[in-house]
Amino acid sequence: MVERRKPIPVIDAVTNVMKHSKLGESEIISIDDCDNRRLAEAIVAKHPVPPFDKSPYDGFALRSIDTKQGAIDHPVEFEVVEHIGAGQIPMKTLKKGQATRIMTGAKIPDGADCVAMFEVCKVYEKNGKNYMSIKRKMKEGQNIVSKASEVAEEEVLIEAGTLINPGVKALLATFGYNNVCVAKKPVVGIIATGTELLDVEDELQPGKIRNSNAYMIMSQIKRAGGECIYFGKLADEFASSYDTILHVLGKVDILITTGGVSVGDFDLMPAIYEKLGAEVLFNKIAMRPGSVTTVAVRGNQLLFGLSGNPSACYVGFELFTRPIIQHYLFNKQPFLKRIKATLQEDFPKPNPFTRFVRSYLTYEGGNIGVKLAGIDKSNVVTSLAHTNALMVLPGGTRGYQRGAVVEVLLVEDMDGQATF
Amino acid sequence: MVERRKPIPVIDAVTNVMKHSKLGESEIISIDDCDNRRLAEAIVAKHPVPPFDKSPYDGFALRSIDTKQGAIDHPVEFEVVEHIGAGQIPMKTLKKGQATRIMTGAKIPDGADCVAMFEVCKVYEKNGKNYMSIKRKMKEGQNIVSKASEVAEEEVLIEAGTLINPGVKALLATFGYNNVCVAKKPVVGIIATGTELLDVEDELQPGKIRNSNAYMIMSQIKRAGGECIYFGKLADEFASSYDTILHVLGKVDILITTGGVSVGDFDLMPAIYEKLGAEVLFNKIAMRPGSVTTVAVRGNQLLFGLSGNPSACYVGFELFTRPIIQHYLFNKQPFLKRIKATLQEDFPKPNPFTRFVRSYLTYEGGNIGVKLAGIDKSNVVTSLAHTNALMVLPGGTRGYQRGAVVEVLLVEDMDGQATF
Repeated sequence: MVERRKPIPVIDAVTNVMKHSKLGESEIISIDDCDNRRLAEAIVAKHPVPPFDKSPYDGFALRSIDTKQGAIDHPVEFEVVEHIGAGQIPMKTLKKGQATRIMTGAKIPDGADCVAMFEVCKVYEKNGKNYMSIKRKMKEGQNIVSKASEVAEEEVLIEAGTLINPGVKALLATFGYNNVCVAKKPVVGIIATGTELLDVEDELQPGKIRNSNAYMIMSQIKRAGGECIYFGKLADEFASSYDTILHVLGKVDILITTGGVSVGDFDLMPAIYEKLGAEVLFNKIAMRPGSVTTVAVRGNQLLFGLSGNPSACYVGFELFTRPIIQHYLFNKQPFLKRIKATLQEDFPKPNPFTRFVRSYLTYEGGNIGVKLAGIDKSNVVTSLAHTNALMVLPGGTRGYQRGAVVEVLLVEDMDGQATF
Repeated sequence: MVERRKPIPVIDAVTNVMKHSKLGESEIISIDDCDNRRLAEAIVAKHPVPPFDKSPYDGFALRSIDTKQGAIDHPVEFEVVEHIGAGQIPMKTLKKGQATRIMTGAKIPDGADCVAMFEVCKVYEKNGKNYMSIKRKMKEGQNIVSKASEVAEEEVLIEAGTLINPGVKALLATFGYNNVCVAKKPVVGIIATGTELLDVEDELQPGKIRNSNAYMIMSQIKRAGGECIYFGKLADEFASSYDTILHVLGKVDILITTGGVSVGDFDLMPAIYEKLGAEVLFNKIAMRPGSVTTVAVRGNQLLFGLSGNPSACYVGFELFTRPIIQHYLFNKQPFLKRIKATLQEDFPKPNPFTRFVRSYLTYEGGNIGVKLAGIDKSNVVTSLAHTNALMVLPGGTRGYQRGAVVEVLLVEDMDGQATF
């Protein structure tokens, strides 16, 4: 009854799954809805920035050549022929001895080649006309922000695959992208297995627990950028379970099941994969928790058989499903960001297999620390609420001491990295 | 024409704004929609976890007293009277010499007080009945996860104000919260000022630029947990601008305007605050960028007058508006998380005022570094796209060298901290 499975290293499992990853499609949405989506096309500067020579200060635009005689004891006088604010267009071309009063951000009038700040100018009226004078020489180009000095036209500013944050959205608006080409979200189906599972709205019954995994994974899918559909629980019977899964596969890009992948008496998934003609990539990984995580491929669809145990389920999703979703969304850095951190407490358990421990980061004087998010029993669900990192403790040790430098995977970071 | 304003320290500005912060209301939503919202009520364990004594392994439940004679050379025999999987309910109370075959997670049958793992049991049939034997003594309670050993009933698990992540959602599902009481999002209105501004769908016109600030801020509001309404641009005329703002104040919890707060010839906001009878808390802060950031209060509404300059606008929102939104959402840690990091490049500019520099973090061997996200000119919008942190460089210095330890505010972190 008990089948022997050979565990494969985590890195082999990840590599194997990623061989079957694919890029998704793109769709056009309104800029109003684009937050937190990923760009499917690069943002290209549709015009230079600034789009015209502009003034960085409030002051007077004039011809530098007219200030040639300017000196502390020799003011040069200009007639103020126009007054323009930002967004107003100068109508007059400056001639000898003329100046334009100009506000920050406004376009430099034709004829002018510099801007004198208010602070260095004297303003007065004479015969009902406006004048200003200046007691210094100005240089050609002084206080002018030249057209295209910040961004040239056609410059690629942001790559496809980038997450749209407030700064990226500002760029989209600047260049008139009122419709944005973003990566379409993959549709990820979820099916739970396990006769012990109640729905969230059910009263508790003897011997049963509520299905928390499906809700947790829906949240993980959303965090990873996917769209989720929950198809409920499988009946505890092979033929109808097989039919349900076959039907659901027609409606999703990716399918996740929870539970039923072990070698217990009631685990249906291995036989379902077989009948579906799905190729099982692996069904045993040298890691804790989540050693029974199974991934199968059928046509161009990936089927993730995650453990029914909450922590194992969580880890299995983050290690294997999330990079598939991220790659689908054009992210060139689909893997969890991996950094180094200093262990803030002892972890005395011997570690035959690589362990992914629910953890959270601490910051102390520029050093990153990491603490356990709870008792590391795979059946304690409470600690996942405090988890923002997974500590990676390689196998083959008798435990780790406080002060050890360990690797940590960041589950809340959205930048990611290019390799596992 | 040029009014003199006295700059106040950043910390005074923050403290002053927070004096006017208030808690929002709560609302009930479906668990399906609760991701990334904040809890308005604590999660309380509605039942113990586990809710019954359960088996952590596949094996046989039995009475330890019956194994008293068990030894390597003396197997003790049990009749297997029942076979239960997880979620199935044991119907039989075990009597002397009886055992129940049991799966991981299943409820321990009455009468039994321990579980022997499969690996130590011998299974066989005799006279058409199922038997197992074991060659060792078992202890009372051995391999049983007791009811309530993980969580006691009525225990407070997660505090109000906590962001709902996948782990928190799993807890909500576990305890049957199919409706979740979350903090209602504050409605934040946005109005842009500036005749130079075009709408995002407009063709570029001479002397004008597209309004990127409003879109950037809408994204910042969403990231901070608020709901945004964009009311467009103010006409460049006092009476109608005043009317618009008065009207909009009836529809929002918080109002943000961009631009018009300086002392330029076309800045309308100071006069509008006056006519509204709003108390201006400050209109000049000793910081760069964003020194003209103005905050006013009218009744129980805060009016944020952010600069029209993109970086100043971004910083003004993160420092002053975001904590107000976070506190409204019951977050007890409403301020940006502030950590220490090592400067990875020189910042040679003299610093008369505290500077908030657009930056991003680097990670090297457990040390946090920080780099400039772009040229620190306040008019360069491109760099905001790469910003995930604001470096805090206190004023009164001639610049900072590579290797200096500086403080950094994390704009993508959602934990926050209790003090500025």
